[in-house]
Amino acid sequence: MWHNKLPLMSWLPQYTRQLLGADVLAGMIVTVMVIPQSLAYALLAGLPAVVGLYASILPQLVYSIFGTSRTLAVGPVAIIALMTGAALSNVAAPGSAEYLEAAWVLALLSGGILVAMGMLKMGFFSNFLSHPVISGFLTASGLLIAASQLGGLLGIPSGGFTLFERLSSLWAGLPDIHPATLLMSLGVLAFLVGVRRRGSALLQRCGLPAATAGLMARAGPIVAVLATTLMTRQWQLQDKGIAIVGSIPGGLPPLSLPWPDPSLWHTLLVPAFLISLVGFVESVSMGQMLAAKRRQRIAPNQELVGLGVANLAAGVSGAMPVTGGLSRTVANHQAGAQTPMAGAVAALGIGLVTYRLTDWLYYLPVATLAAFITVSILTLVDIATLRATWRYSRSDFTAMAITIILTLSEGIETGIISGIGVSLALYLYRTSRPHSALIGRVPDTEHFRNITRHNVETRDHLALLRIDESLYFANARYLEDTLYELVANRPALNHVVIVCSAVNLIDASALGSLEAINARLEDSGVTLNLAEVKGPVMDRLKRSDFPDQLTGRIFLSTYAAWQTLARPAD
Amino acid sequence: MWHNKLPLMSWLPQYTRQLLGADVLAGMIVTVMVIPQSLAYALLAGLPAVVGLYASILPQLVYSIFGTSRTLAVGPVAIIALMTGAALSNVAAPGSAEYLEAAWVLALLSGGILVAMGMLKMGFFSNFLSHPVISGFLTASGLLIAASQLGGLLGIPSGGFTLFERLSSLWAGLPDIHPATLLMSLGVLAFLVGVRRRGSALLQRCGLPAATAGLMARAGPIVAVLATTLMTRQWQLQDKGIAIVGSIPGGLPPLSLPWPDPSLWHTLLVPAFLISLVGFVESVSMGQMLAAKRRQRIAPNQELVGLGVANLAAGVSGAMPVTGGLSRTVANHQAGAQTPMAGAVAALGIGLVTYRLTDWLYYLPVATLAAFITVSILTLVDIATLRATWRYSRSDFTAMAITIILTLSEGIETGIISGIGVSLALYLYRTSRPHSALIGRVPDTEHFRNITRHNVETRDHLALLRIDESLYFANARYLEDTLYELVANRPALNHVVIVCSAVNLIDASALGSLEAINARLEDSGVTLNLAEVKGPVMDRLKRSDFPDQLTGRIFLSTYAAWQTLARPAD
Repeated sequence: MWHNKLPLMSWLPQYTRQLLGADVLAGMIVTVMVIPQSLAYALLAGLPAVVGLYASILPQLVYSIFGTSRTLAVGPVAIIALMTGAALSNVAAPGSAEYLEAAWVLALLSGGILVAMGMLKMGFFSNFLSHPVISGFLTASGLLIAASQLGGLLGIPSGGFTLFERLSSLWAGLPDIHPATLLMSLGVLAFLVGVRRRGSALLQRCGLPAATAGLMARAGPIVAVLATTLMTRQWQLQDKGIAIVGSIPGGLPPLSLPWPDPSLWHTLLVPAFLISLVGFVESVSMGQMLAAKRRQRIAPNQELVGLGVANLAAGVSGAMPVTGGLSRTVANHQAGAQTPMAGAVAALGIGLVTYRLTDWLYYLPVATLAAFITVSILTLVDIATLRATWRYSRSDFTAMAITIILTLSEGIETGIISGIGVSLALYLYRTSRPHSALIGRVPDTEHFRNITRHNVETRDHLALLRIDESLYFANARYLEDTLYELVANRPALNHVVIVCSAVNLIDASALGSLEAINARLEDSGVTLNLAEVKGPVMDRLKRSDFPDQLTGRIFLSTYAAWQTLARPAD
Repeated sequence: MWHNKLPLMSWLPQYTRQLLGADVLAGMIVTVMVIPQSLAYALLAGLPAVVGLYASILPQLVYSIFGTSRTLAVGPVAIIALMTGAALSNVAAPGSAEYLEAAWVLALLSGGILVAMGMLKMGFFSNFLSHPVISGFLTASGLLIAASQLGGLLGIPSGGFTLFERLSSLWAGLPDIHPATLLMSLGVLAFLVGVRRRGSALLQRCGLPAATAGLMARAGPIVAVLATTLMTRQWQLQDKGIAIVGSIPGGLPPLSLPWPDPSLWHTLLVPAFLISLVGFVESVSMGQMLAAKRRQRIAPNQELVGLGVANLAAGVSGAMPVTGGLSRTVANHQAGAQTPMAGAVAALGIGLVTYRLTDWLYYLPVATLAAFITVSILTLVDIATLRATWRYSRSDFTAMAITIILTLSEGIETGIISGIGVSLALYLYRTSRPHSALIGRVPDTEHFRNITRHNVETRDHLALLRIDESLYFANARYLEDTLYELVANRPALNHVVIVCSAVNLIDASALGSLEAINARLEDSGVTLNLAEVKGPVMDRLKRSDFPDQLTGRIFLSTYAAWQTLARPAD
């Protein structure tokens, strides 16, 4: 039990010096790699750059203790940063103290929600997000984030949260494009795309082993960061109008609790829930994929707790909402991390940089960060899945397309909520018209089959209707319609038997419909009977008045119903 | 086709003088009865009283032409008025011109939504509202409306939209209770409750036939209205502080289109959708009940069009959102209405009153209207259903309780959306863990049964897994977990066969899971096979890459899979 709650205990007792060596190396590599992206994602959320560093220290440290994935690296990620920015800009002006404090509140809230979901074993909530909705959401978010970086790439201010707002704000700024910034952006973009496409192959051709080449190719952003920072410093490019990160306050993350303002917390509850859900799904699916590669497993409900505690840590250490990040996790994995100790080492490394070395980041150009985000984010745009889904299923494609369109046009919250809504609606629509069949007796047997497909015995005064689906609110009305139509079309009918062999559930709505059907058939002089009701369903029915109201009987088997009700016509 | 679109044509050609007589009488009775409630519901929505009259004229007239129910009476109703007030107070100050104009926009929007849903045959959308959620929503709304009327009954101002806001605003006003108003309220309340409980029986004892006595008992509000109006006029009670309706502008409803303000329309879209949904469900379930009594049927999708056109008419004639009202419909039915002509007559009657006779309403006390709303609304509070649902199903009760609590504490929109969300979540939770069974061969037959219940042949290197549910996004992860666990626990395993005899659907998410399972089993040296895939499911699979990727085969029957895969161990 204790072992389950503190996943730390599953590896720490067997920890060796050899593992430590691998983890320290991986941790140091990750430290260097995640600093630029941490700064970039904080800026994406409209927060000071240092917040991104804070978000990579305590949250990662805490996750190393409470998380179940051995190599997942936790920190600010692009989608969550985008969602954070959208949520915060509804409650405060970017740059204000309230905006910053609202970020902490958002992290605390989503931490609380994740821990609560983990404790209540509600990891199943993530099942609501179907693959097409996730994929559509990521594609649209990728486009939105790319649009948000255009301002930084062109050296003009931009704002807004829907694609339309972003593009029209860019359009207004177009005359002010800053040529030097644009030049630097194009250079960095070309370098990053080149390294990503060819880097590994090129390095291997230079004689490096494949693993090292792959890792070094991933370090492309570091090279770009170093080169543009040094260039800017050398030629003092900030004086020529190139935007730089500027001075970042040094020191350790501040430990503080945001002031409890009920109306603010209330407003941020829905965004916090969506951030939790998206962060959890992103993190868990990645964690599962990596665990599978090493034949390990992760426990989704414990993972909720791990991510939740990481967010609580973010909330009290001046940071922003966090989750498992794809690029930092892959870097960690490829750098040879063996246990969560690697994550702890990276956290300490970033802590050290934040404590003492933020001066090194002064001359880092914003355009470099924008180019970095743009290149990594465009991998989210997944046209292949869009095409495959179109071919496979129109209704899945519909859910995906609506998610994309609404995320772009109405913002990310509306987009994802509508996506969930539409995929549920389409599923319910499918189950709201269950398959049903009139059945008759296979002569001289106790078997009953569909009358339209088999040559079976029937009676004019008796209808045996088999429903092939559980009866619940979405198909309750359809059940009524089916039965009323049956009775209206068969004037000689005296008895209806609903054969419930495939009914695993009758909920309160369906019970209401059965009661209405019973009363209406009674008016028409037709009895309602049930057959083959399963044990648990019957137990539940007995707790209602329905068995007493029923004009007919509840038969154990269809054959028993046939023997009793078919006889008069024999 | 034409006949379907204009339900008018189903009765007008056969219309007789006799039917006309019955309809004119019913229409006149309804005219008198609905005037007080129309005024009251407009006030409930925070609108001028005359808006309630406007909402009973053109909308009802239009519904007579486009609606399918013969006796449904359309106009402002309590729940819709409450929802209207909540929506409007978010966009404008009550009493302002913007508030009034927003009411027209809301009516136009919900009219547009209803017509569109009708045209697209989306009446199934109402299936989302399960019985427990509707019942909980009505109970909570009844309590909210009763609380909203306490101010009028006590003669003090009150406001707010959640129960807490309403009660705290009342609490603040308690010292200012107006004794004369309270006295009049108590008198009217006692009279209305007395008439409702005993009126019909008393009148029958006086020798009246049951039908007439029932109708006259329903006229109790009219008596109360007449009596208190005359009293107020006689003794000029408004000078003693009794609030009166006051002067209502005469004349016909103004015909106008509200100014198109995109941001206003956008804000009102969600409330308009909820108003449409609730209004439709309320109206259709009532219409079906009444139609059933006379062995008629209504067409839900055409009914959407009818209600939609009525709301469009409300939007262009200075009114507010409308739907089929319970009390006005029952009055119409009991007064002997035979065709929609009765509704048209009532609309003309109310039009006449509005045109010329609004002076008669000058002295009507607000307390009388408040008492009238309170008495009629408390019938919505349905404790019996609450208790029956608790006994029948804890999860249905949970959905109901959450709907009630959130409607009272967070407002009606949050309440109903959460109710829908929770009932869907609970259903998905149930289907997200489908029943599955490992099956084996009944010796010397081609039949396969659950290995835990029957004495069947099995093989260590072969697992036959039957899944008893369609595979879709909510159970896709469960499917993965089930298979990974199976493989982890059976080291000798070489082949897995998923038996799909009960699988009616494999959506894109489940396909993704099958692909992941296939890849993962391949890593473990286990082949994945399918058997008994249904025709439509197979057609769809063929449109994906999955059949090519599959490490095993797709067998027609479980027996075919057994013959091929079990042989090596024979």
